[in-house]
Amino acid sequence: MVEPVGNHYVVARPVYSENLFNEEHEKLHRHHKTFWDHLKQYFCCSPQKVKKIALGLFPIISWLPAYRFKEWILSDIVSGLNTGLVAVLQGLAFALLVNVPPGYGLYAAFFPNLVYFIFGTSRHISVGPFPVLSLMVGATVVRLVPDDIAGNGTSMNISAINEERVMVAATVTFLSGVFQLLLGILQFGFIVIYLSQSLISGFTTAAAVHVLVSQLKFMLQLSVPGFNTPFGIIYTLESVFSQISDTNIADLVTSLIVLLIVFVVKEMNDRYKAKLPAPIPIELLVTVLAALISYYVNLEEKYNVAVIGQLEEGFQVPVAPDAGILQKCVGDSISIAIVGFAVAFSVAKVYSIKYDYPIDGNQELIAFGLGNILGGSFKGFASSTALSRSGVQESTGGKTQIAGIISAGIVLIVIVAIGFLLAPLQKSVLASLALGNLKGMLMQFKEVGILWRKDKYDCVIWVTTFLAAVFLGLDIGLATAVAFQLLTVVIRSQFPSCTILANVGRSDIYRNRKDYTDIYEPEGVKIFRCSSPIFFANIEFFREKLITAVGFNPLRVLRKRNKALRKIRKMLKKGELQVTPKGLICMANYIYESDEELDNNRIEELDQPTNMTDLPIQIDWGAELPPGITVPWVDIHSIILDFSSVSFLDFSAMRVLQKTLKEFVRINIDIYIAGAHEGFLDKLESCAFFDEEIKPSMLFLTIHDAVLHILMKKDLATSPKLKLTEERWSSNNGAITISNGLRSRQGTVRLLFQVAALQLKETAPRAAQGNC
Amino acid sequence: MVEPVGNHYVVARPVYSENLFNEEHEKLHRHHKTFWDHLKQYFCCSPQKVKKIALGLFPIISWLPAYRFKEWILSDIVSGLNTGLVAVLQGLAFALLVNVPPGYGLYAAFFPNLVYFIFGTSRHISVGPFPVLSLMVGATVVRLVPDDIAGNGTSMNISAINEERVMVAATVTFLSGVFQLLLGILQFGFIVIYLSQSLISGFTTAAAVHVLVSQLKFMLQLSVPGFNTPFGIIYTLESVFSQISDTNIADLVTSLIVLLIVFVVKEMNDRYKAKLPAPIPIELLVTVLAALISYYVNLEEKYNVAVIGQLEEGFQVPVAPDAGILQKCVGDSISIAIVGFAVAFSVAKVYSIKYDYPIDGNQELIAFGLGNILGGSFKGFASSTALSRSGVQESTGGKTQIAGIISAGIVLIVIVAIGFLLAPLQKSVLASLALGNLKGMLMQFKEVGILWRKDKYDCVIWVTTFLAAVFLGLDIGLATAVAFQLLTVVIRSQFPSCTILANVGRSDIYRNRKDYTDIYEPEGVKIFRCSSPIFFANIEFFREKLITAVGFNPLRVLRKRNKALRKIRKMLKKGELQVTPKGLICMANYIYESDEELDNNRIEELDQPTNMTDLPIQIDWGAELPPGITVPWVDIHSIILDFSSVSFLDFSAMRVLQKTLKEFVRINIDIYIAGAHEGFLDKLESCAFFDEEIKPSMLFLTIHDAVLHILMKKDLATSPKLKLTEERWSSNNGAITISNGLRSRQGTVRLLFQVAALQLKETAPRAAQGNC
Repeated sequence: MVEPVGNHYVVARPVYSENLFNEEHEKLHRHHKTFWDHLKQYFCCSPQKVKKIALGLFPIISWLPAYRFKEWILSDIVSGLNTGLVAVLQGLAFALLVNVPPGYGLYAAFFPNLVYFIFGTSRHISVGPFPVLSLMVGATVVRLVPDDIAGNGTSMNISAINEERVMVAATVTFLSGVFQLLLGILQFGFIVIYLSQSLISGFTTAAAVHVLVSQLKFMLQLSVPGFNTPFGIIYTLESVFSQISDTNIADLVTSLIVLLIVFVVKEMNDRYKAKLPAPIPIELLVTVLAALISYYVNLEEKYNVAVIGQLEEGFQVPVAPDAGILQKCVGDSISIAIVGFAVAFSVAKVYSIKYDYPIDGNQELIAFGLGNILGGSFKGFASSTALSRSGVQESTGGKTQIAGIISAGIVLIVIVAIGFLLAPLQKSVLASLALGNLKGMLMQFKEVGILWRKDKYDCVIWVTTFLAAVFLGLDIGLATAVAFQLLTVVIRSQFPSCTILANVGRSDIYRNRKDYTDIYEPEGVKIFRCSSPIFFANIEFFREKLITAVGFNPLRVLRKRNKALRKIRKMLKKGELQVTPKGLICMANYIYESDEELDNNRIEELDQPTNMTDLPIQIDWGAELPPGITVPWVDIHSIILDFSSVSFLDFSAMRVLQKTLKEFVRINIDIYIAGAHEGFLDKLESCAFFDEEIKPSMLFLTIHDAVLHILMKKDLATSPKLKLTEERWSSNNGAITISNGLRSRQGTVRLLFQVAALQLKETAPRAAQGNC
Repeated sequence: MVEPVGNHYVVARPVYSENLFNEEHEKLHRHHKTFWDHLKQYFCCSPQKVKKIALGLFPIISWLPAYRFKEWILSDIVSGLNTGLVAVLQGLAFALLVNVPPGYGLYAAFFPNLVYFIFGTSRHISVGPFPVLSLMVGATVVRLVPDDIAGNGTSMNISAINEERVMVAATVTFLSGVFQLLLGILQFGFIVIYLSQSLISGFTTAAAVHVLVSQLKFMLQLSVPGFNTPFGIIYTLESVFSQISDTNIADLVTSLIVLLIVFVVKEMNDRYKAKLPAPIPIELLVTVLAALISYYVNLEEKYNVAVIGQLEEGFQVPVAPDAGILQKCVGDSISIAIVGFAVAFSVAKVYSIKYDYPIDGNQELIAFGLGNILGGSFKGFASSTALSRSGVQESTGGKTQIAGIISAGIVLIVIVAIGFLLAPLQKSVLASLALGNLKGMLMQFKEVGILWRKDKYDCVIWVTTFLAAVFLGLDIGLATAVAFQLLTVVIRSQFPSCTILANVGRSDIYRNRKDYTDIYEPEGVKIFRCSSPIFFANIEFFREKLITAVGFNPLRVLRKRNKALRKIRKMLKKGELQVTPKGLICMANYIYESDEELDNNRIEELDQPTNMTDLPIQIDWGAELPPGITVPWVDIHSIILDFSSVSFLDFSAMRVLQKTLKEFVRINIDIYIAGAHEGFLDKLESCAFFDEEIKPSMLFLTIHDAVLHILMKKDLATSPKLKLTEERWSSNNGAITISNGLRSRQGTVRLLFQVAALQLKETAPRAAQGNC
């Protein structure tokens, strides 16, 4: 039994090679599912499974009948009203980011909610426009319908352009919905895991910068063409600053005032969170106030400010997406689909953990996909969820998506009835309100310093993502960032720390020999540790490090030995060497001759194992050789490779590893692999790794097992006649190590231990009492 | 000392936590170089370093003065002559792949050789055109100057188009040379490691398929437009088969005869390799014969076959690359630069290993870069090395690049003097000769089956690379394949095998508990092993697996406990519960009430550690609770995480891990991390991983150390009064395990061992002799 001995670690067992261990401890034969089994299971069909899938597809069937009407309806209504008002304002504001008339933002806030009510699995997120996503749609819109055509714009021209832009936004939304739906059906919900926290943080910060820059034109009332090429942000800024003298002062002043108010009140909301019954709805107040002022002062005519103007009343007839546009925005749609889903899912997850209910990534994809398809058909633009709006829905007491559907009702009322009230609102007010939400995202800049101190790679990912997304644009930037991030995983594994280990403290612990003074290295043994998986990208690195660690290139040594053998054969033939019982004796005075030129066919022979069967004597490469014959001095006889961190080994790596090990084996160096994970032996066997030179018996359970095996083997080799004449028990640093330099059958030793144990049984209490 | 005891593994030492081990074994303070140190060292300048760099830049300075003129010059001349003839033929044949007049292939075979002679580090490769690379250049050429413009071609029109095509080929070659030069200067020679064997194999097979398809039009003499869009290969085949009835029978017959002869003779060359003094130069023989027949039979006029025609005589004046074309072929140039280098480097490496001399990847990049810049300026196309031609150069005795420069001389002679002799040669003969070299590449299809059995991932990489390169084109295909390959590395680590371990054989060995019958799991302890690095893409997977393994969600348990506490407080307040020495006693009959609704602010409280300081009694969650209060039953008290395979942990993962561990700690489960690699503790400390709840003392050296620590702690907890009353030594399966259920100071145990050792010293020989 494993039982503690005070604070001591006491173990005595046979030295286990992998083979011996498997012999002594029978392994259960387990059936491991193959790829096909998994596939079959996945596609097998049973009534239960169908029912489960159907229920999963319509989560509303599960939650609506269980709705606790009395308890929940009131808070859902309150939450729905609040969220609805925020949704209206955000819809209008984010429509500016899309570069379409503000009214279309209301459609984006309305339709997806209806779908999510039926298909969504999160109870707390508020579905609708999201600034980053709006900006991404906006970028596509501007690329396909650029401003500069409108440069000489009459009002007629502008409305035509707007119509085209709405069409592009709707089409790209539709297409991204299709992608989301497909991903959901194909169960690709797991893709979000490739967006790490650092990447999302860098990306949203970059998006905030884009929002900031794109809102400048509304705040200053300048006509800035859109640029959606790489480095577009620089062109935009250039364009803004070149016309800065044309700024509309009234808009600028309004923007600054609104920004100031919003920031101050939001700061207060944060600071006095605990004391306030609910956050001050500052956006709503500012909007109402600004609309009233604008209407009564008649800002539009007096100061020539840009106002929202007449909203589209009611709904537009649904349209089929334009095939021509579809082709041009495939790439954009994919990135919009992924970013939209990733943002919504991460927000939904926060609430699912907080309130402890399950959400399903694939079902969320389906819900957002259908939502965007519907929204796109009705000329809305891509929706996801805004963190701020979901925060409102949850903090004002929303319990289920009933709150969501009520907020959609509010949006509906604005669309069909009271939209005209917003007509006099300045666009610059909306722009400022959109900017007011960016503070949190921009504050993420602080993370760079923290990350640099904690993990250089994560920091580099953040910075790369940010720079790529700012300068290359959000879509190309995202792709670049993801590719870069995958590369960092490879790079992290690619330059593993390869160290030479030594025994520390004379027990079974092996550590980097450079780190400790109290170390013991068995003579002629190198213990080499590679601390990462080994695969195509680092196997050469591994090989080089191993060769550096042992201090010689095995292939070169092998060739020199084979060359020496050829020479010896030649000399024996010529009679220049004579075989005596003491070894080879040189009969002729040796005259230096240059290395013979080898022809190309014979060079391969040098890579074969040294063959001495035709020689009358075995040559000991470590002993003195006949004059004129030299081979490199090899001072080790065994190498132990610690593979405990090698979590996988690919086929390319295996080939090179096999070749390298073979080179060592051919110059009579024993190779041991210690600590390999379970299944490693089977894997190697199935790949035909083993042959006559490389045998499965090289695998040992731990480094210490391998070291003991080597010591015993060497002991036997050096003193074959010694037989049970010496036993030493030495006690060192609280550790018993037993040493006897001989071959003893297992039974002998076992008996020996039993006797020792009996003796101790009597002795120990006395000794212990004496100390207490 | 570590010495073997027969075949036994005997260890006794203190139980080591990471902290205790570091206390007992002083760690040397080593200065680890920072990022900036490396940078400084890299850019520091010394006269030696400058000299070394200069010598490295011109390898010829090192090898030419050491040239053994007498020994080597003859074989170099023989090799040069042979290689030169092959180079001429291949130059002409591969020019067809580029879609330029054959004569330009000679420039590609000439100029880069001059540069490589000075700058190259390999002694055996033959620099010049390479079919895959020619094909890649050809794809660009066809894209920028499509055939269909030439559809209605007069001879005038065709020559204009040819001129333009030559210009495109030269420009893309020039640009790829610039990229190679840049990569070489920036020391990016390591990029080749990202091209794994499976990837290169799949890619070259795909290239062979492209070559095959592209040569059809010459073999059948059809005018097929070039398609360089994704799926271009399908369009090409469609075009070929739609006009198959227009085949020129004379060309088809010639092609088939040539192909047959070449295949048979090459097969014979292979089979009788040992017996033949040199391979039969079948290409040369066929060419001479075909040219003679064509000239005397006058095939061109009689059968309307396409012949090479008049070659450009002499050299063209060098031209500056066309800026307009440059812009359009940046992507192609990058892939040509990388593929060209990768192929040449891998061939060079084979010879460098065979003949044991160093080659330098970065210097090779510089050599090929300069070669392509020069070649492009003189209207050549991209060069690398052809495996077959390098084989000729090496097997006919080439020792140094002197052979290369001689082969360039042969090409020069053909260019300036005897090119007219080749004029009557049929293009279909050249096409067949090019195809004759593909057999080896196409045979690589066999690898798919082998790879599938040995490593599924490598097989998938091969197939993906092949399909991508065939259908998407070589450039996009290569990029896709590399990205996919990086993804596989991530995926391999992404779904680590997470297993629950148990003690096997009652010693210090822990294995998957499902695999063995003879297992021992300490009560209440879970040993969990994750066999891969943990990073953003698998941390959630790790968390889920851990929760599944322990059987409960710690956060949920914590919340239930906190809810139960609230209820108990309420009941105590109401007097429904009374505190007695035996525990809490319920005074009221319990009436069921539904779970109280929690308002949103209070839900966070539930995630805090359970706080019982205000209660008059500590609550034992395992004992019976007052009626109506239930908490989930937790049957474990300790979790050991085996981190020996976790080669790195990124910052995203660390955050989630910290949160997860905290959840366990808050429900009073002890967490231990065992076997973490060196430096792990420092890393965690620098990332502020530890706090009041998660302490560095959780790290133990091995699983067994942690298990012993837990057993001792639990022993103390369950029998606090037991004091040095019992010692047991039990012997089991050849292993000593010592157990005593008590607190004993280290000194006591040490003495105990010393006494035991002394006793054994006397006893052992007797016992051993008795057995011998």
